[in-house]
Amino acid sequence: MSLTIKSHVASPTYLSFTTKPSRFTGYNSKIRPNSIYHFNPLKLTYYQPKKMQAPVQYSPAPVIKSSLIEPDGGALVDLVVPEGERGAKTIEAESLPKVRLTKIDVEWVHVISEGWANPLKGFMREDEYLQSLHFNSLRLKDGSIVNMSLPIVLAIDDETKERIGSSSHVGLAGPDGDLIAILRSIEIYKHNKEERIARTWGTTAPGLPYVEEVIIPAGNFLIGGDLEVLKPIKYNDGLDHYRLSPKQLRKEFDRRNADAVFAFQLRNPVHNGHALLMNDTRRRLLEMGFKNPILLLHPLGGFTKADDVPLDVLEDGVLDPKTTIVAIFPSPMHYAGPTEVQWHAKARINAGANFYIVGRDPAGMGHPTEKRDLYDPDHGKKVLSMAPGLEKLNILPFRVAAYDIVAKKMAFFDPSRAKDFLFISGTKMRTYARTGENPPDGFMCPGGWEVLVKYYESLQAEEATQQPAAVSS
Amino acid sequence: MSLTIKSHVASPTYLSFTTKPSRFTGYNSKIRPNSIYHFNPLKLTYYQPKKMQAPVQYSPAPVIKSSLIEPDGGALVDLVVPEGERGAKTIEAESLPKVRLTKIDVEWVHVISEGWANPLKGFMREDEYLQSLHFNSLRLKDGSIVNMSLPIVLAIDDETKERIGSSSHVGLAGPDGDLIAILRSIEIYKHNKEERIARTWGTTAPGLPYVEEVIIPAGNFLIGGDLEVLKPIKYNDGLDHYRLSPKQLRKEFDRRNADAVFAFQLRNPVHNGHALLMNDTRRRLLEMGFKNPILLLHPLGGFTKADDVPLDVLEDGVLDPKTTIVAIFPSPMHYAGPTEVQWHAKARINAGANFYIVGRDPAGMGHPTEKRDLYDPDHGKKVLSMAPGLEKLNILPFRVAAYDIVAKKMAFFDPSRAKDFLFISGTKMRTYARTGENPPDGFMCPGGWEVLVKYYESLQAEEATQQPAAVSS
Repeated sequence: MSLTIKSHVASPTYLSFTTKPSRFTGYNSKIRPNSIYHFNPLKLTYYQPKKMQAPVQYSPAPVIKSSLIEPDGGALVDLVVPEGERGAKTIEAESLPKVRLTKIDVEWVHVISEGWANPLKGFMREDEYLQSLHFNSLRLKDGSIVNMSLPIVLAIDDETKERIGSSSHVGLAGPDGDLIAILRSIEIYKHNKEERIARTWGTTAPGLPYVEEVIIPAGNFLIGGDLEVLKPIKYNDGLDHYRLSPKQLRKEFDRRNADAVFAFQLRNPVHNGHALLMNDTRRRLLEMGFKNPILLLHPLGGFTKADDVPLDVLEDGVLDPKTTIVAIFPSPMHYAGPTEVQWHAKARINAGANFYIVGRDPAGMGHPTEKRDLYDPDHGKKVLSMAPGLEKLNILPFRVAAYDIVAKKMAFFDPSRAKDFLFISGTKMRTYARTGENPPDGFMCPGGWEVLVKYYESLQAEEATQQPAAVSS
Repeated sequence: MSLTIKSHVASPTYLSFTTKPSRFTGYNSKIRPNSIYHFNPLKLTYYQPKKMQAPVQYSPAPVIKSSLIEPDGGALVDLVVPEGERGAKTIEAESLPKVRLTKIDVEWVHVISEGWANPLKGFMREDEYLQSLHFNSLRLKDGSIVNMSLPIVLAIDDETKERIGSSSHVGLAGPDGDLIAILRSIEIYKHNKEERIARTWGTTAPGLPYVEEVIIPAGNFLIGGDLEVLKPIKYNDGLDHYRLSPKQLRKEFDRRNADAVFAFQLRNPVHNGHALLMNDTRRRLLEMGFKNPILLLHPLGGFTKADDVPLDVLEDGVLDPKTTIVAIFPSPMHYAGPTEVQWHAKARINAGANFYIVGRDPAGMGHPTEKRDLYDPDHGKKVLSMAPGLEKLNILPFRVAAYDIVAKKMAFFDPSRAKDFLFISGTKMRTYARTGENPPDGFMCPGGWEVLVKYYESLQAEEATQQPAAVSS
C-alpha cells in the first residue's frame, strides 16, 4: 500500500492542459519512482522567500494588514514543537506505540501543522469527521461556524489499532520510519469507506484517483487527536522555499501593504486565458477602490498529477511580479468538485486571502465510468457562494475566456458574436502539443509553449521506453 | 412508473417489530393494490380532533404557548388557497401546462403545504437543493440557518419539461388527474440521481426502498417553485382526522397548557419498552421542573411499510391520555439514517415540539447488499446533536430498554447485571408472533400482543393465497 502511494506522490509532473484529470491518460502510467516533483520556475523567482527572513517593514503608519481576513476560529495554529522541546518530545515519541504514515498522510500533517485547516489541531476525531461529512462545516465552542468540507483523517489498520491498545498518545512515523509527530488524546473510530466516499464525492463509481490510491488501500479505523509536529515538514525537492506557510504569506501580504488579496487555485499550466482573468480581476478590484490588490498564484503541490506551472507567462510581462506572489499550496487533491472547492477556498482564508477566484467545474473531473462530467460545471461556484463559514470570503466567479479569432488573443467570451470564439479544450491543447502543432497566436507566450511541447516529447519518449516498468510499479 | 408507486403507497400496513426494514421480508411482496393504510386505533381516541374546532380556551392568564419553540424561519406557512379564491385559481390551473404527480409527490405537497418543512414554500429550486444536499441546511435571507437535510424535490421527465416550455407556472395534477396545486415561478434543473442518492444515503448500493420506488423511476429533471394548493390534501382512508397539521398541534399544545412538548417518532408498533421510555422521559422533564409536559406520539404515515401502531398499550394505562397526543406525521420515509433523523426532528420543531427523543439507529436499516447496519447505530443521535439549525431543539437520547428477566418487565439496561437482560430483536418478536408463541410476560400488554398475532395470521393466510398475484403487481 505505502509503495503505491509512495510512487504516486513521487511521480513527476504530468503536464496537462486539460481542465479535468482523465483516468485514461497516464494517471498511473507516468510513474517514475525515483523522480521528484517537477516544478519549473525557469529562474523566475518574482517572490524571493529569503526576504521573509528579514524583519517585516511596515509603512510609516503601520496597519495590521493580516486583519484583511481573520483565520478561521481565531489565531493560526502552529503545531510545530518549539526547538528547545524537540529532544524531549522525540524521546517521548519513541516510547509510544507507532503509526506509520504514507506520504499523503505526511502532506496532511504538513497542512494541519501550518494552520491551512485552522482551527483544526490534528486529525479529526469522530465529532469533527461527522460534521465535515454531513454539514461541510464545524461548529466551534463559541457557536460560530467554520467551513470544513473534506474529512482530514488518518486511517489505521486492525493490527495498528491492536498495537496501540489503550495508549492515549501515539508517535507518527514517516514512510521511512523517522518519527515526525505525536498524536495526543487519541480517539479511534470506524472508517466506513463507502459512506465517506459517497458523501464526499457524490458517487461510489470506481476510478476516483484519491479513492483508489488513498482510501481503498487504507485501514478500517480512523484515529483522531491533537498533533505535535517534531520539526517542520520538508520535502527536499528543491521547492521547499515555495511552500510558504499561511503565517509567512500573511507576513508577506503585510510587507507589501496589500489592501486586498485574491487567490487563484491552479492545477494546470497558466495560459493567457488565466493571465487575462487574473489581470481582469485586478482591474475589477482597482475599480472597487482597492489601491494595492495582490495576487496569490497558488498551485496545489500535494497528491495530484502535480501539474507543471510554466511561469514563462510571467516572464512575458503578462503578470506583474510586484503584485503577484507565487507559492505552493501543500494540500493533496481529492478531485471532489463542489465539496473540495470549499476546502481550497477555506485554506486560502487562513493564508490571508479575502478574495477567491472560482471558475467552471472547480476540482472537477470526468465521471470515472460514464461519459459526462462528474459534477455540474456550475455547481462548484454555486455551492461555494452558499457554503457555511465562507460568508466572509469574497467569491469572484470566472468570466469564460476563449480565443478570439478576430482579435487573435484570449478574450472574455462575448455571446453576441459567439462564432468569433474558439474554445480550446484541454484535449485539443494536448493534441497540439503532442503533434508539435502550434496553438493559435496569442494563446500562450511562445516560450511557455516550447516548454510544454518539449515536456510532451520527453513524456512520449519515456512512455515508449518505460511503459512496461511504469505500469507494473 | 406511477403504477409501481401507486401500488406501494396504497399498500396495507406491513406490521413489523423490526427496527429496520429488510429488503428480503416482503417489502415488495405484501402489496394489495386496493387496500388502504391499515391503522388500528381500536376505538381509543384519547385525542379528539373535533375539539380542535372549538374556540381555543386559554387559561385565565393567557400565555402564548406556541412560543415554546418558534417554527423555522418565523411564521408557519399555509399554502392552501383561501376558499374564496379556489374557483379562480382552479380555472387558472386548468389553463397551465400540467405535471402529473405520483402519490408520494402528493404526500410531499401535503407536507410542504402545512409548514412541516417551514420555511419552504414549495418544491426546492436548485439553490435550496444544493444547500440541502451539501450542508443539510438552508441559509435564509436574514443570515439565519434552518435545518433541511432531505431534498424535497419534484421530478419531471423530458417530455413534461418539453410540454412546459417557457411557462412560468404549472398546474400539478394528482395521480387520478385532479388538479391539486399550482407551482409558481418555476425553475427546472438537472436531476443527477447518482449524486442525490450518494449524498443523501451515503451509499449507492441497489435496494434502498425510496431510491428504488421513487428516485430511479423518476424523470431526469427537477422542478422547483412556490406552491399554491387548491384545497387541503385528504386521503379519505378514515384516518384524516389523525393527520393534524403543525398549526393544529400547536393550538392543541396551547389548549392543554403544555410547558414542554416531547416528540416521539415511530414507525414500529409501540411495545412496553417504548412506553417505559416515554414515561421515563416525562419523569425526567418533571424533574427538570416542567409542570405539564405533553407527549406527541407521532407515527409516520407517508410512504413506508406504514407500520401499525397498536394503541392497546395505551388502553392498559401505560400512557396517560391526558398528557399524550396521538397524530400522524404525513411525511414519506427515506430510511436515510443520520440524514433523515434531522428531517424528523426539524419537522417536529415546526409542529411545536421542543424536545425530541432519539434512539439507536434512527431511520436506519440494514445495508441493502452487505450483512451489516447501513449506518453506525450511534451516528444518528450524534449527527442530530450537532446539526445546523437544530440548536434550539432539546435532544433526548434514548436509554436502552431490554427485558429484565428478574423483574419480569421492560427496564432500562443495567450493564452491571447484563445477563439479567434479554434483548428481544425485531426478528425474534416476529418469530414469536408468527409461531404463536408468547413473548415474555410484561413485554407488551396481552391485548396488544393478540392484535399482532392475529395480524400475522392474516398476513400468512393471505400470502398463501395471493402471493403469485402480489409478486406480479
